[in-house]
Amino acid sequence: MGDIKRVAILGSTGSIGRQTLEVISALPHRFSVIGLAAGQNTGLLAEQINQFKPKFIYSQDKTPPAGDKCEFISLEEMAGHPQVDIVVMATSGKWGLKPTLAAVKAGKRIALANKESLVMAGEIITKEAKLNGAQILPVDSEHSAIFQCLQGEAQKAAKIILTASGGPFRGYSPTRLAKVTPEQALKHPSWRMGQKVTIDSATLMNKGLEVIEARWLFDMPFDNIRVLIHPQSIIHSMVEFADGSVKAQLGQPDMRLPIQYALSYPERLENPTLPHLDWDNIKELNFEPPDFDSFPCLKLAIEAGRKGETYPAALCAADEIAVELFLSKRIKFTDIPRLVGQALTEHKSITHPTLEEILTTDSQTREKVKQMVGDNR
Amino acid sequence: MGDIKRVAILGSTGSIGRQTLEVISALPHRFSVIGLAAGQNTGLLAEQINQFKPKFIYSQDKTPPAGDKCEFISLEEMAGHPQVDIVVMATSGKWGLKPTLAAVKAGKRIALANKESLVMAGEIITKEAKLNGAQILPVDSEHSAIFQCLQGEAQKAAKIILTASGGPFRGYSPTRLAKVTPEQALKHPSWRMGQKVTIDSATLMNKGLEVIEARWLFDMPFDNIRVLIHPQSIIHSMVEFADGSVKAQLGQPDMRLPIQYALSYPERLENPTLPHLDWDNIKELNFEPPDFDSFPCLKLAIEAGRKGETYPAALCAADEIAVELFLSKRIKFTDIPRLVGQALTEHKSITHPTLEEILTTDSQTREKVKQMVGDNR
Repeated sequence: MGDIKRVAILGSTGSIGRQTLEVISALPHRFSVIGLAAGQNTGLLAEQINQFKPKFIYSQDKTPPAGDKCEFISLEEMAGHPQVDIVVMATSGKWGLKPTLAAVKAGKRIALANKESLVMAGEIITKEAKLNGAQILPVDSEHSAIFQCLQGEAQKAAKIILTASGGPFRGYSPTRLAKVTPEQALKHPSWRMGQKVTIDSATLMNKGLEVIEARWLFDMPFDNIRVLIHPQSIIHSMVEFADGSVKAQLGQPDMRLPIQYALSYPERLENPTLPHLDWDNIKELNFEPPDFDSFPCLKLAIEAGRKGETYPAALCAADEIAVELFLSKRIKFTDIPRLVGQALTEHKSITHPTLEEILTTDSQTREKVKQMVGDNR
Repeated sequence: MGDIKRVAILGSTGSIGRQTLEVISALPHRFSVIGLAAGQNTGLLAEQINQFKPKFIYSQDKTPPAGDKCEFISLEEMAGHPQVDIVVMATSGKWGLKPTLAAVKAGKRIALANKESLVMAGEIITKEAKLNGAQILPVDSEHSAIFQCLQGEAQKAAKIILTASGGPFRGYSPTRLAKVTPEQALKHPSWRMGQKVTIDSATLMNKGLEVIEARWLFDMPFDNIRVLIHPQSIIHSMVEFADGSVKAQLGQPDMRLPIQYALSYPERLENPTLPHLDWDNIKELNFEPPDFDSFPCLKLAIEAGRKGETYPAALCAADEIAVELFLSKRIKFTDIPRLVGQALTEHKSITHPTLEEILTTDSQTREKVKQMVGDNR
């Protein structure tokens, strides 16, 4: 039997949250749901509460749905609660920062899907994790792959090769990209993900954010992180060691695998609902360098990462507003990197920022990008 | 500095032996040569003795070359000598069996390149290794890949995917194969290896022997070992785990990498003479199922492995003679599987054979195959 780990899912109604619940449903002898927290999708949250009967709930609009038997607590309380064994950080954007910090300070195991925690506040989060013995298990398929490849190695990796599908517009020229619609951008060729990350995958901003994440998760200099386009999304990333040997982790593009691994690590659990690779149907795996000219977001993100300070926070904030504007058809696809680039150029950075300064950068940059578009109309 | 490991190389003039000496030459602060043993290539052995100044030597023709300062000892003595830290078993064929057993009984670390030790006597060798705390580190690139992928995993692998280049005649029909010459067969597309293993790669017998080796090295049922043709020889093999996650090890096709890993494990050492993968020049990796009809040796080997007992010994012996006959142009390429198949059909197997019974099977089968060809002329 073994003991049952109690899991709190912050962001339970999003794509990662729902897939986490699928994994837990398939492995009821190993995991139970102790907490569920969601944003505005109160309907789905109510269904989830009904099905999983968590002890703790949180909902952004403060009206506890179906909550007679549940305790309504804050995100930070849930993330650091002594009864919680594993915190799945699946909230989107900056909403993840404070709960992630709370979980880290409580020394939890954190299955981290929220990119912004490490991108915006990597220095703070990793320092506190080390101080408090918290275990950050990446949920991104790429970082999970790297983490898996590093197991059992006596030394650090020499290089990280972060693979990228290239998104739905791989091979497009900047002119052709200017005409793409939100509907086209939301059709990702291989992954099932939320809207924001799907657009970020189409601009390659997502890959840039992942480079910054990798820098913090694996303490790896930017010069030793390489992005490689691999359209099939079968190889989820690779690691090169000092002797030139390379390890790769492969699997069907399905987020449930890295989610489950982050929950079960260091064990691996049989789960008949997870897909396996079928080598009868894999004829080739392709690779090409990323096109930095058509996808300037990748370069912008890596540059912001190298500069550090509050640049990555400004990057995230600018991108989030730009993606919203694109989704509501107020700007073109190619305006996303333009706005982000302008926001970064105008950004006044702060060295060794506190969490509050990072969050101030976030709100100021959001305002600035909205103004830029207001000026443009 | 760290301590310097003293390495004895059995089969120092063969391809693996020479590449082992290249690795040791590049890492003189980590490894020294304490013993060299060779077959009939006395000229090269004399050069090696001159360069590496080993303490112990052995040569099959019993005339110690340049041996005034060296002690001439037997292969078994060298393999089990207390002053030897690592035994590189790079002798070919059945000559490896007794020294491997001696090394295993002495609880050594063995960098094992000699396939026959495990194929012919896997049950005996692995049992004695466990009893005496010997460490068998595979030198074959495929098994080294699997071994690397298993590091740090809490559980056994669920499946092994053994990759194969497919050899120089991939895609050939049986009719076309009947006409290939030894010269054509000796041109392997990706690996630099000895003659016997190059022909075995062309018939896929080599891959069959590797399946049997994998069965013993990783205690893996034959049903869970799959052969996959991968012409570029970049992915050296893969492992699938219970959760469906797959790990692969990749590298340039260069035997020095797995040789060095077997010497340095669990460490990895920087070695500027080793090649690294260049992702600017890797555009695709291809995969296809093996063609059991054109390459019956693969099936014959797996069948012999499944039957166990003395069948694998008969397989190895028959193949060795058949390859010799092909190289001396006495039989056709397609006669190799025919002769091996006939030898296996006529073989009278012994259950739980002793090492002596295995070696008797070997000599009897060799005689029988020679007779078969004599009858055919």
